[in-house]
Amino acid sequence: MNEHSTDYNALKQSEPSLPARWYFDEAHHQRELKEIWHKSWVYVCRSHDLAEPLSFRTVEIGDQNIVVLRGETGEVVAFHNACRHRGSILCPERQGRLKSKLIVCPYHQWAYAASDGRLVKTSSFAEPDGFERDDYGLFPVTVAVWRGLIFVNLDAHADWDADLPFQREPAHLNNFPIEHMVTVHTWRKVMACNWKTFWENFNECLHCPNIHPELSDLVPMYGRRIVNVKDVPDWADHAGSEDPKYRGGLRKDSQTWSMDGSAQGHVIASLTADEVARGQTYGVAMPGMFVGAYADHMRIVRMLPLSAEQTELVAEWLVPHETAEADNYDISQIVDFAIMVMDQDLAACELNQRGLHAAPLQQGVLMPEEYHVKHFQDWVRARLQE
Amino acid sequence: MNEHSTDYNALKQSEPSLPARWYFDEAHHQRELKEIWHKSWVYVCRSHDLAEPLSFRTVEIGDQNIVVLRGETGEVVAFHNACRHRGSILCPERQGRLKSKLIVCPYHQWAYAASDGRLVKTSSFAEPDGFERDDYGLFPVTVAVWRGLIFVNLDAHADWDADLPFQREPAHLNNFPIEHMVTVHTWRKVMACNWKTFWENFNECLHCPNIHPELSDLVPMYGRRIVNVKDVPDWADHAGSEDPKYRGGLRKDSQTWSMDGSAQGHVIASLTADEVARGQTYGVAMPGMFVGAYADHMRIVRMLPLSAEQTELVAEWLVPHETAEADNYDISQIVDFAIMVMDQDLAACELNQRGLHAAPLQQGVLMPEEYHVKHFQDWVRARLQE
Amino acid sequence: MNEHSTDYNALKQSEPSLPARWYFDEAHHQRELKEIWHKSWVYVCRSHDLAEPLSFRTVEIGDQNIVVLRGETGEVVAFHNACRHRGSILCPERQGRLKSKLIVCPYHQWAYAASDGRLVKTSSFAEPDGFERDDYGLFPVTVAVWRGLIFVNLDAHADWDADLPFQREPAHLNNFPIEHMVTVHTWRKVMACNWKTFWENFNECLHCPNIHPELSDLVPMYGRRIVNVKDVPDWADHAGSEDPKYRGGLRKDSQTWSMDGSAQGHVIASLTADEVARGQTYGVAMPGMFVGAYADHMRIVRMLPLSAEQTELVAEWLVPHETAEADNYDISQIVDFAIMVMDQDLAACELNQRGLHAAPLQQGVLMPEEYHVKHFQDWVRARLQE
Repeated sequence: MNEHSTDYNALKQSEPSLPARWYFDEAHHQRELKEIWHKSWVYVCRSHDLAEPLSFRTVEIGDQNIVVLRGETGEVVAFHNACRHRGSILCPERQGRLKSKLIVCPYHQWAYAASDGRLVKTSSFAEPDGFERDDYGLFPVTVAVWRGLIFVNLDAHADWDADLPFQREPAHLNNFPIEHMVTVHTWRKVMACNWKTFWENFNECLHCPNIHPELSDLVPMYGRRIVNVKDVPDWADHAGSEDPKYRGGLRKDSQTWSMDGSAQGHVIASLTADEVARGQTYGVAMPGMFVGAYADHMRIVRMLPLSAEQTELVAEWLVPHETAEADNYDISQIVDFAIMVMDQDLAACELNQRGLHAAPLQQGVLMPEEYHVKHFQDWVRARLQE
Repeated sequence: MNEHSTDYNALKQSEPSLPARWYFDEAHHQRELKEIWHKSWVYVCRSHDLAEPLSFRTVEIGDQNIVVLRGETGEVVAFHNACRHRGSILCPERQGRLKSKLIVCPYHQWAYAASDGRLVKTSSFAEPDGFERDDYGLFPVTVAVWRGLIFVNLDAHADWDADLPFQREPAHLNNFPIEHMVTVHTWRKVMACNWKTFWENFNECLHCPNIHPELSDLVPMYGRRIVNVKDVPDWADHAGSEDPKYRGGLRKDSQTWSMDGSAQGHVIASLTADEVARGQTYGVAMPGMFVGAYADHMRIVRMLPLSAEQTELVAEWLVPHETAEADNYDISQIVDFAIMVMDQDLAACELNQRGLHAAPLQQGVLMPEEYHVKHFQDWVRARLQE
Repeated sequence: MNEHSTDYNALKQSEPSLPARWYFDEAHHQRELKEIWHKSWVYVCRSHDLAEPLSFRTVEIGDQNIVVLRGETGEVVAFHNACRHRGSILCPERQGRLKSKLIVCPYHQWAYAASDGRLVKTSSFAEPDGFERDDYGLFPVTVAVWRGLIFVNLDAHADWDADLPFQREPAHLNNFPIEHMVTVHTWRKVMACNWKTFWENFNECLHCPNIHPELSDLVPMYGRRIVNVKDVPDWADHAGSEDPKYRGGLRKDSQTWSMDGSAQGHVIASLTADEVARGQTYGVAMPGMFVGAYADHMRIVRMLPLSAEQTELVAEWLVPHETAEADNYDISQIVDFAIMVMDQDLAACELNQRGLHAAPLQQGVLMPEEYHVKHFQDWVRARLQE
């Protein structure tokens, strides 16, 4: 091992990975649903997706179905998607719009105020002695909207500021006008892997050269298996280099993550030259979402666990308003590139998942470059109090 | 709430529904199989379906496969559908006819008397010391035939008279010659809901106007969300009304449950004018069957649980002999109407099932009109000794 | 019962079969995986299948994925198919060939020596303090090669000679040159039955006349439901008979197990006249394989449990070298016959499986001819220490 430069960015010693059975044991998965997914801020959709009053989206976090909707006066509210009468689901669709300011159960037509879930009407001729409508409002779910992104939290006592899900410094996204951009494409896939397997893949680039040859060509530093200039022991030797291999950013003459590296439509006007040069900027909202930000677009990726070994992935592409209104840009350049990279990651995650069952494998081991993986795993351990 | 008329038919106070997890928890489901389904009279088929000597039907109650057959001398018997040798299934088909008065195992040809399940023959050259054929007869299952309907009970000590499954007064069916009618159609569907969800749907009409617009038009009282004149507090105000909205029965100029309300073929000759006017008459045999009786036909609906969240439904349509032999009636008028109504119910049951997983929902609540649902739930609770 | 001839080959008394729930209970199945499948020699493939240096096969024993490969210098080695880094599967395909003498993880390119699983290279810039490559070699799996057949054993302390899986005297196969023959066909099927159900079927011929009419015609003794001349009490009465019904072997004018009984290609030169006359010879390697040997070919049948009620079957047909090189033989004569017989057995096994759930059936009973079944069941009991 070389003498390290100061500020070497990596783990100083190898670290044990999480217990292998945490990735496939169904009982452990139930524990993660309870301790992590049902106590964390989970991204649902953009505020824009609920632009129309009384429009709604539904989302399933584990087996908990939540309806999120725009009230008449603009507020966003969320409820458990279950009628208090005999438990029917209220809004069976993934998205839609209420016909009135009431949420009306499709089964027996109990009606709840869309604004606050109050029970407004039952369908009985008379309500019986001892029945108080106030006792039968919808079960509320905590909502937060951050820069046009809607999150829900099944923990009634959740506090956005105290439990801020964003890591990797959300300030990095300050100049990206995510709340004003336009969604131009959505893509959905089910992966045969645990949700943590996906996050660990996201959190390191040791896999980049062989899994992502095109991306490693576009982002030369990734081709060196690292994400930050200080991720190698001898980083100071190339400290002043302008070569993107050493300083980061995209290869010469490229502007964004697209098939040929060319930007599409308008570059985001509010970015600094440094932010454009950076090539990509990330925001992470654990446990269910990250944002990739590029010179000309943003991409939101949401994951939701379907079972211990199945995870749903939904990606959304956002462009500036002026691009969305233009007709001389080719969004497929951008979408196809990201789908290619995500499909490569999915295949890698599924390989990872398949090997985790090996009986002698108590757990894997983290290498120096995997400090973000370690950070992620510590976050998981803390929530499980392990 | 109005001052109630005397004899108001409804629950006086709201009642808790069953625990929500009873509808999806697989361990609880196993308990219901054991305590309810494996100790109750379960409808298999009509006696007519086994008209031929040595004809048989098989039925699965939970994971217990039962073969029911007509002996040579006319008696109906039932056995566990398993060979005593190494456990092969004996009659793998849903229905068929034995080739002889023996039930011969298709695997090693052990042969049992169809009449009583005695082991008659093994396939070995010699039977070993200590082997007594009498020890290896088929495991018998208790059978009862009631008005041409065949029921089995996995409880060896079951007594038809003591454990009478029919509720809602079977006497109401006295003038319907169910034992003599002819089955003209059968329909099968698997529902994504618990078996109790279906029964609760069956036991109330609060859902009728929005779930069943056509039926609510045909049976105007259903359009008022009720099934009995005394189900509303102010029932006495319309006590003498001839309007079917208040007195029950079908809308004017309609005779039966069919697409246009017209009777098909022959009206059942043995009915009183009151029975014809009633429009529909029900018989219920818990936990797996109900009968709907109309002026010109009957309908048997059987349900069997496949898992906590899956239930099989089979419906059969019966007409009088003279109708079956006529050629100027349109059975699709009747069949299509009932399938339309049942499909509507199935969709409602599946909505109900989906919402029951909501974690804060300990249980729902029953409203005044749901006294039959309460009766059903108390029946379930009693069997589970809760 | 007749007075028995001496040396009557059968069980003297009826014997209880294994508990019925052992055939479908998933928890019991896990116990069998642990105590039997993960401690026994399991057939993977022929040594010929790994003829090329660095070629490999993978096999799943329960949820344990094993890679078996031919090292550069000819040795056969096996490892758990999981990377020590973060647990990715190493060789995702069923078969293939390494590109070098290293097993390189497809995820992060950790590289292991194919010869002994030593970790040779990680993909990190520097390995951290305390990280010793020697601690991260692949988990080895014990291998044995017996006459060109490759077996693995997940028990690190397994000893081929002490734990010899072959029963029914492997010496019977001595003159069959299995290590030199050529595989000409492979067939795979998933059966809806427990693995033991299949073995019990294999171990008796009481089922032959009705399940296998064609085979019973070809092997007349099977038509009598037995596999050995001494399996009937009065065997001595026909002790000197040349009729294949009594002495065993194939029907007159037949040479092998084929659709019309005719041999295909070359008869195996090393066989004695007695071995040719015997018609079929078996070798059994518990719990996952048997070999059928005939005058002109051999057949290897491997089974692997997929779950309590699902088992994978793979059959391979082998012919002498000189047959494989000839062009005037019809392998379909041989393959079609065996597939017909195996499909008949599969259907029988699936019938057997379906009946085993009958609640009153604690277990079946073994009859005199089922002494091989008894032997099999005792082998299972011993491993479960019951």
